[in-house]
Parts: sequence; structure tokens; C-alpha cells
Amino acid sequence: MDPAPLPSSHGDRDLASEARPLRSWNDGAVKQALLAFVDAVTSEGADTCVPPEHRVAIFDNDGTLWTEQPFYSQGLFVFDRIRALAAEHPEWKTQRPFQAVLEAGAGMPHGLSEHDVGALVAATHAGMTTDAFDRISREWLATARHPRFHRRYTECVYQPMLELLALLRARGFTSYIVSGGGIDFLRAFCEEVYAIPPARVVGSSSQVRFELHDGRPVLIKLPELGSIDDGPGKPVNIHLHIGKRPILTFGNSDGDLQMLQYASVSELPHLELLLHHDDAEREYAYDRVSLAGRLDEALREAGPRKWTVVSMKRDWKEVFGRHPATTSPGTSIH
Amino acid sequence: MDPAPLPSSHGDRDLASEARPLRSWNDGAVKQALLAFVDAVTSEGADTCVPPEHRVAIFDNDGTLWTEQPFYSQGLFVFDRIRALAAEHPEWKTQRPFQAVLEAGAGMPHGLSEHDVGALVAATHAGMTTDAFDRISREWLATARHPRFHRRYTECVYQPMLELLALLRARGFTSYIVSGGGIDFLRAFCEEVYAIPPARVVGSSSQVRFELHDGRPVLIKLPELGSIDDGPGKPVNIHLHIGKRPILTFGNSDGDLQMLQYASVSELPHLELLLHHDDAEREYAYDRVSLAGRLDEALREAGPRKWTVVSMKRDWKEVFGRHPATTSPGTSIH
Repeated sequence: MDPAPLPSSHGDRDLASEARPLRSWNDGAVKQALLAFVDAVTSEGADTCVPPEHRVAIFDNDGTLWTEQPFYSQGLFVFDRIRALAAEHPEWKTQRPFQAVLEAGAGMPHGLSEHDVGALVAATHAGMTTDAFDRISREWLATARHPRFHRRYTECVYQPMLELLALLRARGFTSYIVSGGGIDFLRAFCEEVYAIPPARVVGSSSQVRFELHDGRPVLIKLPELGSIDDGPGKPVNIHLHIGKRPILTFGNSDGDLQMLQYASVSELPHLELLLHHDDAEREYAYDRVSLAGRLDEALREAGPRKWTVVSMKRDWKEVFGRHPATTSPGTSIH
Repeated sequence: MDPAPLPSSHGDRDLASEARPLRSWNDGAVKQALLAFVDAVTSEGADTCVPPEHRVAIFDNDGTLWTEQPFYSQGLFVFDRIRALAAEHPEWKTQRPFQAVLEAGAGMPHGLSEHDVGALVAATHAGMTTDAFDRISREWLATARHPRFHRRYTECVYQPMLELLALLRARGFTSYIVSGGGIDFLRAFCEEVYAIPPARVVGSSSQVRFELHDGRPVLIKLPELGSIDDGPGKPVNIHLHIGKRPILTFGNSDGDLQMLQYASVSELPHLELLLHHDDAEREYAYDRVSLAGRLDEALREAGPRKWTVVSMKRDWKEVFGRHPATTSPGTSIH
């Protein structure tokens, strides 16, 4: 087999050099499987070669591309927003679920139900234009710091995964994010941090209404739910937004189970991977009991379905980049 | 200004040669406006230059890229499906709205309400897997013929628009379809006919459910409506699927009004166009009264909003290609 050459575009040079692809991955079965798969589907003339238009790769975000502990970053954003808006809402002091957030101070609120989370999301995400929400999200991402790693959340992305994204980009893959996170929140950083443009970001969404304000068109975010891009919602949205089965699919939790199942029946060569968080020292160790990122069913199905389980502890030389990321979300053009 | 050179990729050679771009367009103000805009936003160093990641172009489909008379092709597909399925549904002979379709023979059924059309779409589009629907759509597109032009519907695409799509592709634009048609029906031909892959096709949709059939994942099309991608639904779906405002937007009816308004407030250089069907001899002449493609409000707003009105009669040298399209929908890989 004769792999297509890697281009030497400046932006990708450090992340995906032909000499050392996936350099933050330890040598071993997983790294070998990844490199062998990418070579197989990109070697022109090989019967395993997949035409570029079918080289679709899909990545979950929380816990797959960036850290999701102690809680989803977007959840922490919601709590910060509640605190920031509290002065305008004195009634929240005694009103569930806002009271629980305010009483927790800078800590994690306790005893929130799914319904509570929905109410908090609606109070912080709805009733504003999509442009205003984008601005607020970018401001938070530019200033908020992870409680343990003391760096911006966009600097808590996994270095080995950035290298994999770069390798796939160099080999003619088209990568998508398919995340349970809110689509508008994700888009505030995915292009700058992962080089994945908004059109290739799929997430949960609320309903949105078109309005003319003095002749000027705006889109208003509504409190009503649009789509939950988690579990069985993921293959449904893959079909709606992408319209092709992926040939490389990477997840880390039971929320990715159905999208991994969906990918498993591709008629083309395909590879499914599950990141296992087993590294309490460098990141976190969790799977079966966790506020975020429960991994139980998917791990059980990994054997029979031949999914590759990636051990953070064993397979990753580094978890985060040595230096804080140099790119950060800036202002967006609309 | 120094326009970026056109690549000489084999597939685009005939449609977009540097020597004769838009050769099926008559010389005049509209062709000049198109070429000047494309040059302006792709001339590196010019202050009108737009970075490739913001060169988003959006096209309506019915009446903008292919003919929509005497009725939307997908509507004709629905009527053909009702006739094909009638033997399995003897009750349809006396049941509205199926009776109206069956009694019309090969002709157009009369007096259908919007509710009726919804019932016909549900009966022909729902209760099957997305794969099965794709197969049925491709079979119909491969065999059905336009009643006046006696060629396949995919051969009733407009030659000047294929040339514009090719020019934009050569100049680093990313083009999307944003159509009122059903997203799964559109995807059965858009990649082969327009070189626009499924991920860049936005359309109306029903709800879809993920199921495991003997461990094999499938997506079932449901009768419940998902999204109507028409009128105010178009900017909402542009935001959901694309996440950026287009800089070139092409429509032909009041169903495109809100997406044109939405595009009109881009902070980047931008161009909006409306195709006016005024050519009864070569195609059709219609605007204010029509089963499909009503154009009244949008035409009224074209002046104040500075939208470019394209006259089919005046601005197009040819309407359809001289030779039947050589590409046709084949089988799809899933």
C-alpha cells in the first residue's frame, strides 16, 4: 500500500508531521490500529481505499476531545450565568432550582434533576438573539478557568486528539463534532480550537424563531427544546446533518452507544473507538458512576462489536499540550 | 485586483473554464454583477476579499436550480408513489385525499389542501427506513420523465446555474442547497447532479427514530413533521445546519424571502439574487399566481434591499444543457 502523502501546510506541521504522526500516543496496539486504518482507507489503489467523499469521521466532544470533569463545561457556564444574572432576578434566591445554584457559591450545586437542568438552560440560553448568545459564550470561554487545571477550558483539550484530527485532515477526511452539548455553545470555540467549522458541528438545540426588528432579521433562541443530541438522538442527527455513515467514530460514554452502533454497520472499512478515562493522576478515572460520562453499556458492547477501547493511562504519552493553546475564541463574523 | 486562478480539474473543465466563465449567461448587467462580485471577494489582498471559510453560497432548489413546473418534482414523485401503492390499499379508492390522486390518472389532482398534501407525503415517505426511502427515490429519478420536456427531472437542471456552481467551487466557495423539498429526497440526487454532498443539503424533514432490528441499527422515517424548510424556516435552518450567514444567496420565490433578508445584513460583501421565470417559450412564465413558486413579496422587496433580479429570458443564453446530463443518480453507499 502506498499512503497518500501528507501535505506540509503550516498550520498542521506541528500536529501531524509525516515523520511522527500521533506523537503523543504511546506505541502499542491502539496507535497501530489507528495508523493502519488511516493508511488502509487512504492508500490509492488498495481495495480498502475509501474515496475522500466517504472519509467521514465523527467525534463526541465532552470527555472525547476535552475534559468533562468535574462537570460538563457548558454546565459550569450555566452556573456562572445564573450567578451573573442573579442581581436582575432577586426572586431566584428562594426559587428552585436557581436557589440551589446560588447557595452553592462557586461550588457544584447538589440534587439537580434533569428537569432542573432544563430550567437552568432555558433561563440562560433563551430569549436572546443567536448573535448575543455567541458573544456571551465567547466571553465566558475567554475568561473562565478549569477548577483543577487552572487554565481555560479550551486549553483542556486533549493533545493526542488534536493530533488525530490533524492526521485525518491531512489524509482527506472530513471530521464532524456530534456532541450532547448545545450547538451554539460548541460553535463558539470549535472552529478556532479544532479547525472544525460551524457547519460541521452537530449538537443539542433549542427551537429558534426568525423575527424582523425594525426591518433587521434576527434569530431568537426559544426555551422550547429542539433536539437532544445524545444517545439515540446522535444517529438521528448524523443522518439529518451529515447524511452519510462515518467510517471513523470516537466516543467515550453511553451517550455515544447508538452512534457507535450506527457506524458499526457501514459497508465500507470502518473503525470505532471508545476513550476510557482511567487516569486519575493526569486527568480523571471514572466510568460506571459519574455525574458526567457514564460508560457501562458501551464498554460491555465494545467486545462483541469489535470497538477499540483507548486507555488514557496506557495509550497517551501526554494528555494536555505542554503549552497553553495559542489559539483562543475571538470575535465571530456574522 | 488579481483573482485567484481557476483550477483545471477535469470535472469542472467544461462548466467553468477561465476563458469563458458563465458562458450560458448573456452579457449584461447581471452577468457582470456576478463576475465582479466573485472577483471582488476572491482577490487576495483586495479589501473586499473574503476568507475562504466565509465564502458560503446558498441556493434554493425548486425553480432556482431545476424546473418546478408544472409542479414540484417531489410532488409528482408523491403522486406516482400513491399510484404505485394503490393495489396494496384498496381503501384509497374512496378515501380523501388518495381518491383525488387516483382519479386524476396521470394528470394533476385538483383541490388538494395543505393538509391533504401532508397526508400524501406521510403515506409515501413514512414507516420505512431511510435506506429504503433513498432507494425508492433514486429508482423514481432514474425512470420518471418530465411531462413537457420528456427527459429525466435531473436533466431539467439549469445549465447557467451548473456553471455558476462550478465557478464558485473553483473560487473556493462552499455551496449549500437550502430547499423546501424533503431532505432525504434531495440527497438522492444533489451529490451526483450538483456536486453538493448530503452534508451540504438542507431541506424539510420528518422526525426519524433510531431502532435496533435484530441488533442492526436502522433509522425509521416517521409521519410526524420535523422541520419545514421554507419561508422563516430557511434562516432558522441555515443557522442550525451551517452556522454562518451566506455571502451569495440565490432564490426564486416568496419562500426564499426570509433567507434573502437574513443574508442581506451580512457584515461581509454579499450578493442576493432572485430568478424571475419570464420565459414561457423555453421554460415557464409565472410569478404572482402559481401552484408552485409564487414570487410577489420578494420581488417587491428586491428594489429596497438591492437584490439582483435575474430574468431567465434576458440573462440566459441556454436554459437546459444541449445534451442530456451524463450523470444520473446511481446506488448509494451507506
